[in-house]
Amino acid sequence: MIGLAGAGVAGLAATGGALALSRAEQPRPEPVAGFGDAVEFYGVRQAGIVTPAQDRLHFVAFDVITGKKAELLAMLEAWTAAAARMTAGLDAGTIGAVGGIPEAPPDDTGEAIGLPPSGLTLTIGFGPGLFRDATGRDRFGIASKKPEALADLPHFPGDTIDPKISGGDICVQACAHDPQVAVHAVRNLARIGMGVVSVRWSQLGFGRTSSTSTGQVTARNLFGFKDGTANLKAEETQLLDEHLWVRDGDGPAWMTGGSYLVSRKVRMLVETWDRTPLGEQETIIGRTKGSGAPLTGKDEFDEPDFTVKKDDAPVIALDSHVRLAHHSQNQGARMLRRGYNYVDGSDGLGRLDAGLFFISYQRDPHRQFVPVQKALARTDALNEYIRHVSSGVFACPPGLLAADDHWGRVLLS
Amino acid sequence: MIGLAGAGVAGLAATGGALALSRAEQPRPEPVAGFGDAVEFYGVRQAGIVTPAQDRLHFVAFDVITGKKAELLAMLEAWTAAAARMTAGLDAGTIGAVGGIPEAPPDDTGEAIGLPPSGLTLTIGFGPGLFRDATGRDRFGIASKKPEALADLPHFPGDTIDPKISGGDICVQACAHDPQVAVHAVRNLARIGMGVVSVRWSQLGFGRTSSTSTGQVTARNLFGFKDGTANLKAEETQLLDEHLWVRDGDGPAWMTGGSYLVSRKVRMLVETWDRTPLGEQETIIGRTKGSGAPLTGKDEFDEPDFTVKKDDAPVIALDSHVRLAHHSQNQGARMLRRGYNYVDGSDGLGRLDAGLFFISYQRDPHRQFVPVQKALARTDALNEYIRHVSSGVFACPPGLLAADDHWGRVLLS
Ligand code: HEM
Ligand code: HEM
Repeated sequence: MIGLAGAGVAGLAATGGALALSRAEQPRPEPVAGFGDAVEFYGVRQAGIVTPAQDRLHFVAFDVITGKKAELLAMLEAWTAAAARMTAGLDAGTIGAVGGIPEAPPDDTGEAIGLPPSGLTLTIGFGPGLFRDATGRDRFGIASKKPEALADLPHFPGDTIDPKISGGDICVQACAHDPQVAVHAVRNLARIGMGVVSVRWSQLGFGRTSSTSTGQVTARNLFGFKDGTANLKAEETQLLDEHLWVRDGDGPAWMTGGSYLVSRKVRMLVETWDRTPLGEQETIIGRTKGSGAPLTGKDEFDEPDFTVKKDDAPVIALDSHVRLAHHSQNQGARMLRRGYNYVDGSDGLGRLDAGLFFISYQRDPHRQFVPVQKALARTDALNEYIRHVSSGVFACPPGLLAADDHWGRVLLS
Repeated sequence: MIGLAGAGVAGLAATGGALALSRAEQPRPEPVAGFGDAVEFYGVRQAGIVTPAQDRLHFVAFDVITGKKAELLAMLEAWTAAAARMTAGLDAGTIGAVGGIPEAPPDDTGEAIGLPPSGLTLTIGFGPGLFRDATGRDRFGIASKKPEALADLPHFPGDTIDPKISGGDICVQACAHDPQVAVHAVRNLARIGMGVVSVRWSQLGFGRTSSTSTGQVTARNLFGFKDGTANLKAEETQLLDEHLWVRDGDGPAWMTGGSYLVSRKVRMLVETWDRTPLGEQETIIGRTKGSGAPLTGKDEFDEPDFTVKKDDAPVIALDSHVRLAHHSQNQGARMLRRGYNYVDGSDGLGRLDAGLFFISYQRDPHRQFVPVQKALARTDALNEYIRHVSSGVFACPPGLLAADDHWGRVLLS
């Protein structure tokens, strides 16, 4: 009667009490303590990387439209002050301009008045174009400071990247528990940057798909699977030193203690996925959908065992996502994932325009993200259900230690 | 130095402790009790209209692609069962199909497993096209049941409506405190409806711009103003009877006790707004930005007094939004607003693609929404800063009283 979904529907409509465990009865992910609290802006590292992943994202990439270094530096100084205030919930103090002058535009756009800091973090990154623009020009005399690790990402098999929503000279990742707070922050940075930068693209994410701390319950992506289980976590400091933070000697000194961000907007063909049998879905991922355990284990955090076979075939398939993405298959390459689910309405063809806004942080994208994505692009069984539509790479310097330091100072002055 | 925003920026960067009241010190809107709780699905009225406005929205409009009434009815029956389960948090009970058959696609898409009901409401509405399609055909033999109140909205001066994201045969408004829960609900309805309906357009809203209960703190829209102050509220039952709920004799019996939904996606040119002086912003709205009080009053909930003059000019300007929208200027017309802020990324021209997804409920759109919007479209000072880009009108029948009743039964069978 109702096409392919019919069987399921009828069951759903009819069975009522027969289902084993209702959503309401499931263990509920407790919000991380202090949903409204502030996250410290200053520190050895930028906040927003190993900070326990907040619930919502507004990611923005800017083009720098001025050729004057002094203007860019002044803006970055103003941004830093604004970021420090906004992450502390100290913005929007007055409704008008400072002094309340009705003849001047307000200092703050106002939509976050009354909202707590909500765990807001603002993480800045610099793109390849800041060092050399599309025409090859070194606008700010910093081409010699460009890290090798910041080279553009290669084209991967199957890529359908839209340049209009890719790249950018500067990115800001705004994460918060309240989307209004994240949106407000991006908008006010854009406003402060008027005439110096222009918004190239921006993306809202509504649900985190990664845990970045062992204290977090693993959330689910739009394929219904737990996502972030085998992620690098804030508590694994030794692994972070090895895989996340740029070391002395890795490249130019201004990046030591920082990390590289890769963004990939991955459209997910959810309608096709939803018609795929459960067993096939689990084979494709290499984990069970319920607990998130690897197909060779029982609990979510059991290590997958890629050697186990059943009927002569590997239990975790050769083209399964977790096998191909696992560090044991990629010369030890790991990354810290920090992605978000997105829905951008529908696509005009009767389908939701939905997917994963993938973000990863790593010491060197070309030794970590790139080889993993190459392996995935070549053989991942998931590829039938996903399309990479945007791409970005950015150098995120270390944190600021003092209130008189500011974003971009070490790089640009 | 940094163009128009310069003055404000310098102030922001420099003043620190000088600001009167920080965001963190402001009174915080307390979440409505029981953020995770379920809202009753069955009742005299559909939930999601006077239900205290939840924080997040996923709105979807479907085209009916079958010509077979029995298929449509069967789908609506399956939808109803799914809606009752999802709003109660009872979906996603099994990971696979009922019985856990690995060879069948799962009954539920799974991304909301472990999440509480989160105040989810699902509100259904039927559009004009269900009664007569674009070619004038009465596919389901119900043209005679079409209410006059469901006539298409007229073109308003300045309208820049995109038909691809307007209209639709059936709409579902999914509201919840957790966006993942709202998205999950829409997606599962789309999935159940495969072959019967097709997603025409869908819209995410991240922040409510209306209170629909006196117990709620008024939230702010993206112009930074409190929005929803003078709204109809759940507690004003007499006003609701007069302005919100369709009465016996208003039209066909199947709509008695229901309400009509108007949706308008209104792009807001936030960058232009942000350059407008505070005094001008307040004159345009007719209220102060801080407290939300009318310019003739002191407290948010003071009644505006349109007769007060200063220097011979009305204090609340003739072309201000609240004057033009006020019931005293529109033969008493009121409505229940239930809109959400949205950000759809950026527009490719350096600006955020952001605005208000306006929703109103009323007894008769052509006596309430239409005259008010006509007045606004003609003279509202806000028009310089906004563009209406999508439009919809839907008839939302009364609620279902018993588990054996279902959506569309009275209308279609
Ligand atoms: C829409 C696209 C994607 C989906 C739906 C997806 C989904 C998943 C899921 C469900 C897991 C298992 C749970 C976990 O450990 O987090 C996983 C693991 C992983 N994914 Fe993805 N992923 C996607 C794209 C990517 C991309 C683009 C990369 C990087 C190139 C990537 C890298 C990884 C890594 C490194 C792991 C951990 C593997 C392990 O060590 O066990 N994923 N992904
Ligand atoms: C982006 C577009 C819009 C913005 C920014 C906006 C903003 C506001 C604000 C700030 C208020 C005052 C606070 C309140 O009472 O809620 C208000 C009131 C109101 N608005 Fe709008 N509005 C918009 C569009 C509309 C539209 C399209 C309609 C209906 C045609 C409408 C109808 C009303 C009504 C009826 C009131 C209450 C007036 C009163 O009784 O005092 N608004 N709006």
